[in-house]
Amino acid sequence: MIKARIVVTLKNGVLDPQGKAIEGALGTLGFSGIGSVRQGKVFDVEVEGEDRDKARAELAAMCDKLLANTVIENYSVEIA
Amino acid sequence: MIKARIVVTLKNGVLDPQGKAIEGALGTLGFSGIGSVRQGKVFDVEVEGEDRDKARAELAAMCDKLLANTVIENYSVEIA
Repeated sequence: MIKARIVVTLKNGVLDPQGKAIEGALGTLGFSGIGSVRQGKVFDVEVEGEDRDKARAELAAMCDKLLANTVIENYSVEIA
Repeated sequence: MIKARIVVTLKNGVLDPQGKAIEGALGTLGFSGIGSVRQGKVFDVEVEGEDRDKARAELAAMCDKLLANTVIENYSVEIA
């Protein structure tokens, strides 16, 4: 069993209204000195088998097909 | 300027219908051997200043107050 973490983040230049809202809310709560906030998604996936290279390729395919919108998002795959 | 990444994940035992739906969708797409999928959130935050300990404390306070629901979620703060 291989445990992997996929992090999907918006590409630079893509507007992130959710992040902006969080920035505003943090300001309202009294946190100062916040430069910027960008929100993304994280997926913790368990893949059967022990072949790390195969798992990495499969996880990248999952990102391309389902988990990330590669027009506006980047993804990274970390295998524990 | 300190760049930090906050990862918020559901605690073990908390149901994750979104993750379950992704698991099902991956199966439908032909990916086999997926053990489980759990979805979480990631926040990339820029904090002004250079004091890493202060930033870490402030980021933990942000998680407790706004970014995470500590009843059902865990968070981790990584400073780049």
